Formats: sequence, C-alpha cells, structure tokens
Amino acid sequence: MTRKLRMGMVGGGQNAFIGAVHRIAAFMDGKIDLVCGAFSSDPQRAAESGKALFLPEDRVYPDYKTMIEKEAQLPEDVRMDFISIVTPNSVHFGPAKLAMENGFDVVVDKPMTVSVEEAKELQEIVTRTGRTLALTHTYSGYPMVKQAKAMVKDGHFGKIRKIVVEYPQGWLSRLTDKEQSGGAEWRADPAKSGKSLVMGDIGTHAAHLAEYISGLKIIDLCADLTSFVDGRTMDDDGSVLLRFTDGAKGVLMASQISAGEENAVRIRIYGELGGLEWANEDPNNLIVKMLDQPRQLYRTGNAYVAPYTLSSFATHNTRIPSGHPEGLLEAFANIYRNFAETVSAKRDGQTPSAESLDFPTVEDGVRGMAFIETVVKSHESNEKWTKFDV
Amino acid sequence: MTRKLRMGMVGGGQNAFIGAVHRIAAFMDGKIDLVCGAFSSDPQRAAESGKALFLPEDRVYPDYKTMIEKEAQLPEDVRMDFISIVTPNSVHFGPAKLAMENGFDVVVDKPMTVSVEEAKELQEIVTRTGRTLALTHTYSGYPMVKQAKAMVKDGHFGKIRKIVVEYPQGWLSRLTDKEQSGGAEWRADPAKSGKSLVMGDIGTHAAHLAEYISGLKIIDLCADLTSFVDGRTMDDDGSVLLRFTDGAKGVLMASQISAGEENAVRIRIYGELGGLEWANEDPNNLIVKMLDQPRQLYRTGNAYVAPYTLSSFATHNTRIPSGHPEGLLEAFANIYRNFAETVSAKRDGQTPSAESLDFPTVEDGVRGMAFIETVVKSHESNEKWTKFDV
Amino acid sequence: MTRKLRMGMVGGGQNAFIGAVHRIAAFMDGKIDLVCGAFSSDPQRAAESGKALFLPEDRVYPDYKTMIEKEAQLPEDVRMDFISIVTPNSVHFGPAKLAMENGFDVVVDKPMTVSVEEAKELQEIVTRTGRTLALTHTYSGYPMVKQAKAMVKDGHFGKIRKIVVEYPQGWLSRLTDKEQSGGAEWRADPAKSGKSLVMGDIGTHAAHLAEYISGLKIIDLCADLTSFVDGRTMDDDGSVLLRFTDGAKGVLMASQISAGEENAVRIRIYGELGGLEWANEDPNNLIVKMLDQPRQLYRTGNAYVAPYTLSSFATHNTRIPSGHPEGLLEAFANIYRNFAETVSAKRDGQTPSAESLDFPTVEDGVRGMAFIETVVKSHESNEKWTKFDV
Amino acid sequence: MTRKLRMGMVGGGQNAFIGAVHRIAAFMDGKIDLVCGAFSSDPQRAAESGKALFLPEDRVYPDYKTMIEKEAQLPEDVRMDFISIVTPNSVHFGPAKLAMENGFDVVVDKPMTVSVEEAKELQEIVTRTGRTLALTHTYSGYPMVKQAKAMVKDGHFGKIRKIVVEYPQGWLSRLTDKEQSGGAEWRADPAKSGKSLVMGDIGTHAAHLAEYISGLKIIDLCADLTSFVDGRTMDDDGSVLLRFTDGAKGVLMASQISAGEENAVRIRIYGELGGLEWANEDPNNLIVKMLDQPRQLYRTGNAYVAPYTLSSFATHNTRIPSGHPEGLLEAFANIYRNFAETVSAKRDGQTPSAESLDFPTVEDGVRGMAFIETVVKSHESNEKWTKFDV
Repeated sequence: MTRKLRMGMVGGGQNAFIGAVHRIAAFMDGKIDLVCGAFSSDPQRAAESGKALFLPEDRVYPDYKTMIEKEAQLPEDVRMDFISIVTPNSVHFGPAKLAMENGFDVVVDKPMTVSVEEAKELQEIVTRTGRTLALTHTYSGYPMVKQAKAMVKDGHFGKIRKIVVEYPQGWLSRLTDKEQSGGAEWRADPAKSGKSLVMGDIGTHAAHLAEYISGLKIIDLCADLTSFVDGRTMDDDGSVLLRFTDGAKGVLMASQISAGEENAVRIRIYGELGGLEWANEDPNNLIVKMLDQPRQLYRTGNAYVAPYTLSSFATHNTRIPSGHPEGLLEAFANIYRNFAETVSAKRDGQTPSAESLDFPTVEDGVRGMAFIETVVKSHESNEKWTKFDV
Repeated sequence: MTRKLRMGMVGGGQNAFIGAVHRIAAFMDGKIDLVCGAFSSDPQRAAESGKALFLPEDRVYPDYKTMIEKEAQLPEDVRMDFISIVTPNSVHFGPAKLAMENGFDVVVDKPMTVSVEEAKELQEIVTRTGRTLALTHTYSGYPMVKQAKAMVKDGHFGKIRKIVVEYPQGWLSRLTDKEQSGGAEWRADPAKSGKSLVMGDIGTHAAHLAEYISGLKIIDLCADLTSFVDGRTMDDDGSVLLRFTDGAKGVLMASQISAGEENAVRIRIYGELGGLEWANEDPNNLIVKMLDQPRQLYRTGNAYVAPYTLSSFATHNTRIPSGHPEGLLEAFANIYRNFAETVSAKRDGQTPSAESLDFPTVEDGVRGMAFIETVVKSHESNEKWTKFDV
Repeated sequence: MTRKLRMGMVGGGQNAFIGAVHRIAAFMDGKIDLVCGAFSSDPQRAAESGKALFLPEDRVYPDYKTMIEKEAQLPEDVRMDFISIVTPNSVHFGPAKLAMENGFDVVVDKPMTVSVEEAKELQEIVTRTGRTLALTHTYSGYPMVKQAKAMVKDGHFGKIRKIVVEYPQGWLSRLTDKEQSGGAEWRADPAKSGKSLVMGDIGTHAAHLAEYISGLKIIDLCADLTSFVDGRTMDDDGSVLLRFTDGAKGVLMASQISAGEENAVRIRIYGELGGLEWANEDPNNLIVKMLDQPRQLYRTGNAYVAPYTLSSFATHNTRIPSGHPEGLLEAFANIYRNFAETVSAKRDGQTPSAESLDFPTVEDGVRGMAFIETVVKSHESNEKWTKFDV
Repeated sequence: MTRKLRMGMVGGGQNAFIGAVHRIAAFMDGKIDLVCGAFSSDPQRAAESGKALFLPEDRVYPDYKTMIEKEAQLPEDVRMDFISIVTPNSVHFGPAKLAMENGFDVVVDKPMTVSVEEAKELQEIVTRTGRTLALTHTYSGYPMVKQAKAMVKDGHFGKIRKIVVEYPQGWLSRLTDKEQSGGAEWRADPAKSGKSLVMGDIGTHAAHLAEYISGLKIIDLCADLTSFVDGRTMDDDGSVLLRFTDGAKGVLMASQISAGEENAVRIRIYGELGGLEWANEDPNNLIVKMLDQPRQLYRTGNAYVAPYTLSSFATHNTRIPSGHPEGLLEAFANIYRNFAETVSAKRDGQTPSAESLDFPTVEDGVRGMAFIETVVKSHESNEKWTKFDV
C-alpha cells in the first residue's frame, strides 16, 4: 500500500457497540484513517460522535446520502475511499448500493441485507461496477479458522462427513431493557432486523463458518425455530439439521436464550481420517484429532516445521508471537486489512494476493440471506427437508 | 447391608470389554462377590474365564439357563442373589426374564432389549415378581450428574428451555477388524444389536441422560440417520431435533464416525435463570452459568456451605475427597452399589433410601427402546415430527 | 495369579479416609480379599469396622501384634498373605517390621516411617527377609505418569534441564476442627506425623513423582518452610529449589494453605527437545510440547500407532477404553495389583514382569524420609544449598 | 481528549517485533497518530520503515537526538507530543532522558534501563520535569489482572499468604540463528541487555505482576540462575524464593528453555479466605477459589451484579462484550490509552481519573531494575537470603 485508505462511516454513533468495533478493526494496522461519517440521524448525537472521533465538523454528515454526494465532490486526494456500514440490517442495502454506484468501495456488517432480493441486487451492482465489498463475518478472520480451512482443503482429514456448528448466547434470556420499555431493540424488530432474529444475528455467522472451513455448501435443511421469551415477537433460538454437498451432514444451533453463555461459537468437522475443533472463546487453539494419533493443538503464531507448517493464510493474519493471545478485534481487523490491501492493489493496477482476497464478499452475503430465508421456510413447513438454493 | 451379595454373570468371558467393567464396578466397594457365571457358549473359553476369576469349576455353567436352574437348587446361603447380564443386546431379554421368574434380581447392560415389545414384557415381569432390575446407564451414576439433576429439580435454573446432548465417538470411522473379516462385530449386526447401531449403542445413553437430569420427557422428535462407512449395514451417525414436555426443545447427536473423538458425552441444559454443562471426559466438573454472575464450577467431593451445599445424591455417590478424580468405573460402581443396597434392604424388609433407589430401572429401559424405535421411524418418514410415546 | 491374595489391614477403622481408599484399591480387580484386620485400638470401633466389612469376629484383632501372631498360626491356605498399613505415620514402622519378620508381605502408606533411621531399618529387613514392600505413592500409579516416564527414558525430550513439581492444597487454610478442639489432627502432631507436616503429607509425593518420571535424583536443595495458620505447631507450606543429577534444576512447591485448591498435583519437565506436563486433577491427559511442533495430548487407553504407541507400562495399568476417565482409585489399584502380581509370581517361583514390578518400594521410602529431613535441615540453615544424600 | 496525541518512535524499524506491537497498541483506539520516527541507525532501513508507515520523509530522522532536537523546533500544533522507545535495553535511558528534558512525555519498553543507577536518574528527571513516563509491563494492562488487583485490595481473599508467579518460554531452548551466526541477538548480549537475560526479558514482568496484583513488595529473595544452552553467555533460566511485606511468601520462575512453552505467564495468589489464578494464554478468565464455595470464573466484559460487579478498573480497560476474546494487543493498548488520557488531562489542566492513571510508571521501572540486580546478587551469594531494597 502506498498510502492509507480513507474511510467514511455510516452509523456507529456514540455508544453503538458494533461501530466502535469496526473502528478499532480499521485503525489497528495503521492503514486506514476515518475521515468522515454519517453517524446518526440525531444531529446532536452525530455532532458529538464526530467530535469524539476528532473529525472536522464539515465532514460529519446528517445522513449517508448527503455524505456520499458531498464526498464524491471532494478532490480525489481528500475524499473518502470507502464506506463502512454499521447500521441496523434494514439500512445496509441503501448506502451500499449508493456508495458503489458513486465509485466507493464498501465494508458492510452482516447480515448483508434484509432479503435475498436486496442481496442479489447488491451482487449485481458489484458485478456491474467492479467495486469491492467486504462482509464482516468476523470468525472467518481468525488465523486458526484459516488454518482449519487450509487443512481441510489439503485433504488432511479426508472426505468430510460431519459438521457441527453452534452459536449459543444467553443475553436475550430476558427481554432487554429496550424491549421492556417498548423501545427499539432493533435486532428484535422484524422491520429493522429481517425475517429471523436468531438466524440473522448469529445463525448466519455459524452457517458461513461451516461453509468457509469445509468448502462444502448446504443443500437441504430442516429447521425448528422458537421464541422462548414472553413478549418477544421474533425467534430467539433455532436448531437445524443440515445436508451438504458431497454427502456430508451436519447440525447448526443458534441460540440467544442459552442463559449464561457469552459468545460461544464452536465448530467441529469430522472427515474420514480425523476431525477438527475450533471455538471463538479460545480462538488461538485449533484442536486436530487424527485417528490413531495423540490429539494435536495447533496454536496461532508458531513457526512449526513440516509437516505441521502453518498455512500462509494463517500467518498472513497473525500479528504477534505464539502464546500472546490475539482476539476478536484482530480477527475483525484482518477483514479490514485484507479489504484494504485488495482495494489498494486494484487502485494501483496490481493483482491482490490470495491471502489479501481472503475475506467474505457479496457472494457470502447472498448465501447468508438465502440461509435465513430457507430456515424460516423450513420452520414453517411440515416437510422434513427444505431445499437450500440461491 | 448385613452380608455381601452374590453375583452370577451372563456373558463377560475373557477379553469381553464390558464384562470386565461390570466386574470392577461390582467388586470395588466390597459388597458383592462373584460366585458363578455362564461366561461363554465356547466351553473352553468359559472354563478359562472361570479359572481366571478364581471360581470353582462346578459354578462355571455352559449357558444361562443351566446356571439359573442349578443355582436355584443351591442352599439359600450359597446360591447367587442376582445375575449381571453383559451379553449382546439380543441376549438380554432371555436371561433377565428367566432370572426374575426364578427369584433372582437382575443387572442388565443397555439397551435393555432389542425391541419395545421385549422391554414391555420385562416391565410386566418386574411388576409381577417384585424383583429389582437395574439398567447400566452409566453416566447417570456420576456424582456431578446427580448434582445437576438435584439443582434442576430445586428450580435453580428456572423453567428449562433448551437441552443439547451429544455423544460423539470415532472408533467406527473405519470398518472394524471384525467387520472387515466378515465376522461378528455384534453391535453392527442388526440380528444381535437391534434396529439402530448408533442409537442403541450410544444414543440411548444420551437420551437417558437428558431425561434424567432435566426431569422432562421427549414427546416429539425429528431424526436423520446415516451409515457413512462403506460396507457397514447399520447407521453409524444420527442427529435428532427434540421437543420435550413443558415446552423445552433440544438436540441430540450420537455419532460413531466423529473421527478422533473418544467418548465425549456432553450435556448442556438452559433454563430461564441459567444453564449447566457436564461432560464425561471431565466428569468431576459441573459448570453452572447463571445470568449476571461469574460461572461456577461445582466439583465432586467438596464440602461446600449453603447455598452451594452438594446434594445428598451427589455425596452418597462419592468415595474420595475433592481433587482426587473419580471416573467412569466409580460411576458404574454407583449403580451396582445402589442396586445392592436396594436389594439388601428389600431382603431385610427395610425401605431403601432415596439415594439407594437412584439407579436406572426397567422404566428407563422401556423408554430407551421406544426412543430407538421412534428415531428409526422418524428417519424413515418425510414428516418433520414423529410422536414419541411409550 | 492362581488364587486371590488375602489381606489383613492395620488401621482403617470406620470413617478413616485412607483405609477406605486402600480397600477399594485392593478390591477393584478381584485379586485380593480382606480376611482380617486390626482396625482400631478402640474395641467397639474395631468390632463395628469388622462387621461393616463382613469379617468374622475371630479375625478382627485388638492390635497389629496380636493379628500378626495369630494369623501366623493359621493354616497356610487360610492365613493372610500380606498386611496393609494405613495408620498414622508413627505406626508404620512397627507393623511393617513385625509383619516381614513373620513372613508377611507389606503395603504401607506414605511417608514410610517418621525418620530416615526407621526407613533404613526397614530397608535392611526387606533385604534380609526377601519380602515385598509396596509404598503407596499413588500418583506414580497413573498410566499417563508411566507414559511420561517411558518417554523420558526413551530420550524423547533429550537431556532433561528443568523440573517443576507442585502439590497445592487448601484444606489446612484454617485450623481443622480437630486442631481447634485441641484434639488429634495427627498429621499436624509432630509425635505422630514426623518432622514436617507439609513435606511428610504431600511434599514427599511431589519429590517421588519428580524422581520417578525424570529418572534423576535430587542432590542439593534450598528450602523455605512456613507455618501460616495461628495455633498450628507444624509447617503448612514449603518451597524448595532443587538441583538434580546430570545438571537438571527444579522447583518443588507443597502447600496446604493454598486456599481453594483441592489436590492439584502437577509436574512439568523440560528437556532439550521438548517438555511434558501432567496433573492429578486431569490425569488422563499427558501434554507433550515438542519444539517446532503442535502440542500433543496423549490420552489414557488409546491404541495409537507408531511412533506414538503407548508404553506397555501405560497400557498394563489401564482398564477401560479411551475417553472413559480413570481416576485416583484406579491409580491406587494399580499399585495393589502390581504388588499382588509380584507377590504371587514370587510365591509361584516365577519372575514378575517389569510392568508388575513397577510400584514404589522400600528404596523410595528411604529417599522420601531423607527428602523430608533434608528439607527441614535446609530450612533451618542460612546456607543456600544443603546436600541431599541418603 | 480534545485531539489525538502525536507520537514519535525510537527504534521499531521494519521486522522489529516489539515496535510493531507498540504501534498497533497506540493506533487501536484512534487517539494517537504516529508523526515521526528514528527507526534505525541504518539510513536505508529507516527510510523504508518511514515509507511503509506512510510518514513524510522529513519526519524520518537518523537518530533520536536529531528527532528530539528537530521536533522541539516545530510548531506546537505539529510537533510530536511524546516518544515511544522500543530499542534494545541499553538505548532506553538516553532517549528517555533527552525527551523529558525537552518537554516530551515518554513510553518506554521494559526493562526501563540497564541499571538501577540509570533508573533512579530517570526517576529524578520525572520528578524534576513533571513529565509522564509509562513503562510497558503489558500483563498489568489486562482487565482480569486489574480485577484481580481490585479484589485483593478489597480484602476479598483476606490477608495474602502465598504468591506463585511464573513466566516459562521455550524459544531460547536452542541458540537463536543470530547467536549461532555470532551475530547480535541483543537480548543475549550483556552490553545491550543488562545483567540478566532471563530476568530482564521476562522475570521483571513476573515480579511486576506479583507486586501489582498483591499490593505487596518483595523484601528478600533467594535466586538460582542457570545458562543451560551451550554457547550462550547469559542466563536463560531462573528460580527465586520470595518473601514479601506483611509475611507473604512466594516463588518466581522465569525460564526461556522451557521447551515447548510459548508465553505462559501465570500467577496464583492465596489469602486466608481464598485464592486467585490468572494466565496470559487464557487472559479473559480470572479463576477465583474461595474456601467452601464452588470455583468462580470471572470473565472479561460481563455486567455482573453485586456482589460480583466487575471493578471500574476492569471495565475501563475492556472494549467489547463478554465472550469475544480480547488479547495481548488490547492489554498493550490499555497502557497507551491510559497514558494518552493522562497526558491529555494534564495538558488540559485536568486531573486524570484513577483508571487513566493506572499504568506502570518510573517507580515500577526502578523496582524492576532493582529486582534484576538483587536476583543476580543473590545468585552469586552463598547466603540463603538477599535483601531487596531500592
């Protein structure tokens, strides 16, 4: 990269959790500057957010449309390069579309949109404009997840038979304060969140992780969704039987009423020769279980020798030596950094490396939306199996 | 107990894994002696087994019928008190029935029979004869499993919402030597094993554990079974969506092709107020996760003070101080000891304590067989949900 | 073995913790019967203990001297074969000596005696009488400890450089009820316990474990002992710098005031090529950490292939398949079983196998007593290093 | 903060591990910009480093003296605010002194200097100039370490009795490539590293952590240092018995030849009422072990209710919700952010919050150097105890 990229942010005003995460992820490697934002539809909150982020007043905009329009008019060496969209799901499509159509690249939080229809339109825009879109399926940014993917691809485990992926949380075991006050917990509001709370918020992460590591695609599923908490309108728990390409089978569980759980994403994949296990709450460990051998613990950042050498995809996404834990923010930052490297390479007329290109894209976004809609469709059906196609 | 109980064994000749386990479990507490056996239909193997177990030749019998007949004729202070049945599943029903009808009590390995029909007949015989039958669902013998059950019952977690129980193994990832040689891996032979390999061998353990701890009953299920290994006639993997009484939902996974797994039984149960987690491979830990509180680790054998005091069901089944791990053999021995205490109390005209009575019975055996048959029925159905009734 | 061995017990009356452990360990494998005992100097407690253990009244003796004298007069096919000594430390020497001099073998709890002098006299008696003496340093009975020893011996880790062994407990963080009532917590009474509480009770286990696995001997040490609890006369915590043969160094920590710890024995050994780690509270795991390779987790009971094949010393001491945890009682039982196999082989004029002979002996007892005395001597010295010789 | 702080870096040219870590830590929160640097004495490497960091050529300086001199002449709203010193230990004192004497604040990597004498001079300069100096003892930046400190201070564990702190690494189990080639592994070169390799590089982290959490001070120690690797001139392993103020005792182990270990910092502290345990490789867990209660696992980022409420010092240093792991880079960033908040508050004439002021200072640096020198003195002495005073 010959210069830092300039980022504009849509959403992410003060006290918005995910906006702060995106900023840390963007800043960490010193390759991206925040230069402008449309942080909030509340002018005062927008202004205070801009000030807290040390932005000049004239680059804090009242809404994303104004931001995109005004920035597009700034000199090329001043205006933003891309936008980061950290708004509720229903406000992903609009800014993503407008940004790309005005020559800006896009990072967007997941799920990409609130419908397959919107998702496919974004896919079409990406194809048409040639712009770069990154989707922040964070868990695929961890080095040991990338190591897992590389080992599966290399045939280390033989043909894959079974995939168990789960994402239990407990934070919606009760109505949130916002729900209780009748206010806007937007995630639990179908108008802002989409067709499924639990699948949109976290199930889609699990589905992406399963397909990312295994290289397989879900082709049929059988789902049971539940809304356990009185007074909640959307589902907060779901379990899904899965059938994958190449004969693999699996189970996906996503739950926000698993009281006492934090963010316990975990995946286990078993092939003919062995299995692997990875968990978000212990992310620098990749447990490898081969038939007839002691279990192996691959750990981030080690300079193992052959045949254990860590994949270039793992090492490219590691910042510090083994034993010094890297966490979720670094996984998030890997998506931003790879996106930035890709955008920069394209600007400079270069081909991005395979490692730089390794971040979730609009195709993952389309599959994610299709996953949500297929789960809901299956849940409402009495047929055991519902076909998953895009 | 005023004297040791005398045990006769059916099956369990030399090199039979589960017979040896039963004997260790029976011997450990010094309350049971092995006095006779019908160890094998092969006379030489039977004789050698008897000798290795230090039995007199005249109490090593050629088959269970002879054993039961001859022992019944011995003086009351010599003859066996009960039989332990450790044969393949298809040879559980016969000796159990004959023993009870001749005045002997019974310990039988799981699954209790090869059909619901047989199971119900045993249930009827127990009712008619008043004999005691214990079924060795080992995992319910662990102190921390009993603690979990007690805490659920006490309302510690509030109303139960979600149950995830799993039993992954990897040892059938390939055809076994016996299968390959065309020989008798009896578990994989429907004639000896029953309608499902994976559910009979291990799934039924998982189902029992879920119902034992939660106090709930499965009422509907949706199953997907698979036979992954070429050349195997029976299923070796299965996943099941569950619906329980009182509105709880769950997932049960049983797999023998999860390559690299050993005996990784694990259960997680979530209620309105918190959740619990227990695993066979780390059995002295009960992880308790309450909303708004640090996680707690209840450990076997501790003299916690109120409100953490361990249940009498946990302490009754613990032999040594905390930090000194007890394992599967002790859990197994708890079933034998509680059975022995119950049988002795009954003989002495006393009422067994609630703690002594806490072992799996013929009712659990009937539900176990119904679980297997319902899973198979669901697997073969295109309907999403299949009713589980007994 | 052609017959069961017959055991007499010295100490271990009702409610005595360690006596019950010894009995379970002796019974588990069906190779040893309890035939007599001198359980208590209190006649009523002795009688009740005998009754609870289903012994005939005439083989419940008032004291060990009477027991040894009377049993020696019984017919050869009736009298006990060996005694198990589970009394306070000060009553180890007497019965051990008398038993061996009357032709009986001996299992004795650790520490072997209360002085090096006594220990050396027992060593002389063993040599003179040719009897077998086993010392219950339990932790060396675990399969994964034996695997560790085998791997060190095979040079897997190269030359050993560093040994860290620790045994933290918390149960003496306060005066015990017995101490508070001015009564007999014999462990904390120098007259019954010996020169050091913490080193006699648990430090000697740690020292034995370090020497057992590493094959090295402590040659110099530097100790700091403390009595932290007001009202206690003996030490309850100690830390020791160690120097071993062949240039290895180490640290040994033993503590009974590490509040909240249970029995957290742990050892780590590092060589030129890699290290190992083992812990009592997770005893079926042996963590192997080789330079440049993923960590490996060797687990009890697996049929690994070369070069990972488990040592015959590990498999000989394993009863059940991998993933089914074995615990402290099985480790204890391994000492009894190996002792029984050795005694039986000798009686039958056979040479015991190397695996059977693998239990702690009188030599370990002598080193244990010398360790305790050297630690106390070092503690009282202002010199940094105190020589450890026997 | 009303504006970002401007940082100049001394050392940290391309491929220098610790410089990159400092930059990530400084950038992450968007409160610090890198504006200049003296990255290397090699002009080409310096230029390339500056370019890779997107700096203008005129702010890449040939050495720290030039940098400090030139920056001091720049306008107040352009020039750097502070320097970050990431050079070998022998080049800490010079730039720190010069910076403070020219009105710049300082972040310096540990150990602060190469002698107590230098350290005390820096302490005097801090006092004289009123400048702010932060020392990057990273482990004290973790939220759960701060929680531990707060709980000890609140008396949660009662009077502290025992502290065990350890820092095993394995990366110096062999001569490094630089050592082998006769080149400059500066850590192992006494001229650049100071009096002890193992204590300067990692032992001083362990000592700081023990004093930071416990609030106690080491007053006497007894050390044994070793150089295990042939061809290495400095020590690579050390064990130390400790005596603290208020009667506590402890053990400190630092080792760089613990083959297979990564950065396994771990501390355990035991008081009259309970104990705590924390480890760098699992940093979001604080294990709390109270007498008579189940173990508790305090985890970063949770909104526990009273009496479990996390300390404001823990929450101030946490960025994301529980279950999303934060790692070493975030701990490092906490030092930078707290330093930046403190410096900004002072500039703005405000009093920094207690939470902002919670970073290691020049006083910690003086104690760290005294620790190293006292350990070396003890190692060379035949007396058991060497007094630790500053």
